[in-house]
Amino acid sequence: MHIDILTLFPEMVSGVLDASILKKAQDKEKFSYNLVNFRDYTENKHQKVDDYPYGGGAGMVLTPQPVFDAVEAITKDKGTKARIILMSPQGEPYTQQKAEELAKEDSLVIICGHYEGYDERIREHLATDELSIGDYVLTGGELGAMVIADSVVRLLPDVLGNTESASKDSFSTGLLEHPHYTRPADFRGMTVPEVLLSGNHARIDEWRISQSLKRTYDRRKDLINKLSLTEKQHKLLNEIEENENYKAY
Amino acid sequence: MHIDILTLFPEMVSGVLDASILKKAQDKEKFSYNLVNFRDYTENKHQKVDDYPYGGGAGMVLTPQPVFDAVEAITKDKGTKARIILMSPQGEPYTQQKAEELAKEDSLVIICGHYEGYDERIREHLATDELSIGDYVLTGGELGAMVIADSVVRLLPDVLGNTESASKDSFSTGLLEHPHYTRPADFRGMTVPEVLLSGNHARIDEWRISQSLKRTYDRRKDLINKLSLTEKQHKLLNEIEENENYKAY
Repeated sequence: MHIDILTLFPEMVSGVLDASILKKAQDKEKFSYNLVNFRDYTENKHQKVDDYPYGGGAGMVLTPQPVFDAVEAITKDKGTKARIILMSPQGEPYTQQKAEELAKEDSLVIICGHYEGYDERIREHLATDELSIGDYVLTGGELGAMVIADSVVRLLPDVLGNTESASKDSFSTGLLEHPHYTRPADFRGMTVPEVLLSGNHARIDEWRISQSLKRTYDRRKDLINKLSLTEKQHKLLNEIEENENYKAY
Repeated sequence: MHIDILTLFPEMVSGVLDASILKKAQDKEKFSYNLVNFRDYTENKHQKVDDYPYGGGAGMVLTPQPVFDAVEAITKDKGTKARIILMSPQGEPYTQQKAEELAKEDSLVIICGHYEGYDERIREHLATDELSIGDYVLTGGELGAMVIADSVVRLLPDVLGNTESASKDSFSTGLLEHPHYTRPADFRGMTVPEVLLSGNHARIDEWRISQSLKRTYDRRKDLINKLSLTEKQHKLLNEIEENENYKAY
């Protein structure tokens, strides 16, 4: 997987892409990246990449020319296959399913905005995807680009070790994870649930499935509604709901 | 606003917090931060901060002791007021409304996990907030901590200049932003909508309100459902819906 990141602030990005799992992925030659400052492509004699919005209003808008030229220079040798992703609060909400989809690509180009926004022609005629990492406003697209790089690269084969398996992560099962506990069994009087110390793996599994469902039910009913539950999950969920109704009286 | 960030990878964070608007906010003394490696607080003789999960399973879990001790060292002098935020995929989804709420605090402590997760006692007995920046899995909480720092600090008074006003951002109005265009009016045959060149500000305003509604309707019906629309917005939305139904025939 190769990722090109177009940014006016390349110094923001390397600290994350050169650390932890992303560093290991580079060492294993599973991941490489390239930072492109699209200011280097502007034809403006003052090196500007933004201008006032047509129709008035506050904020500056990124002009199309430097972004089009930078993307074309990067993708020239790649044929038509490159995914060109625009980071934007107006984009499609980014999810784990999207991360799994992008992990199948050989190459991604990610465009990070700054200032008030992009000229609409970048969105309409250059980008293949427009993604938002959440319903909040950031200074620029750099954090979004790093979120995509991190979440995608860790899904690539042989990037995570055995002890870091991605298969039981939150969202890959559609549910939030159950609680975890480690030593000591008693920390300042706060103890670990007895079932986890029992050595009875059937009971432990049941507890975990039930806790995972209960946590998702309590915090994120929107995720439950998207699931097709197994018969066992359905039964457990009914029990959780009955307890809930009981408490309401 | 002062933010303490607890992380095992402090080198990931400075590149973002020392750039762009966050750098300016530090220069104006509106924002300061401190990175705390909680490995420095472990009592484990091998400097470990994680251990195997009780009940078995893949992945390592962060032990409670180093995190409790690091947070207590930081908050000792701050009284009981510090917000202690745990970054976690199981957390409450982070939104612009939450950013506005956090921007009212003097001080935040943000705990970044790594590995499989936290010992549940950190969640139950130490954190005051548990936040998730989106429905995807990251290697650690560092990107989340940076998202919170960036989105919160830019809302502080006198951080953004006049030309960077935050008031019309996406989500602060509850709607996605309308399209932006800047020069040139014709870029490789791609042109700017005529209305924006008209100089008629009433028409421009109407176009922008309508485009903002239409974009939100097309992409994020979930946001529309949360809004209490003005009469004018309601009328425009009805027109958009009628057009939509017409196209469906």
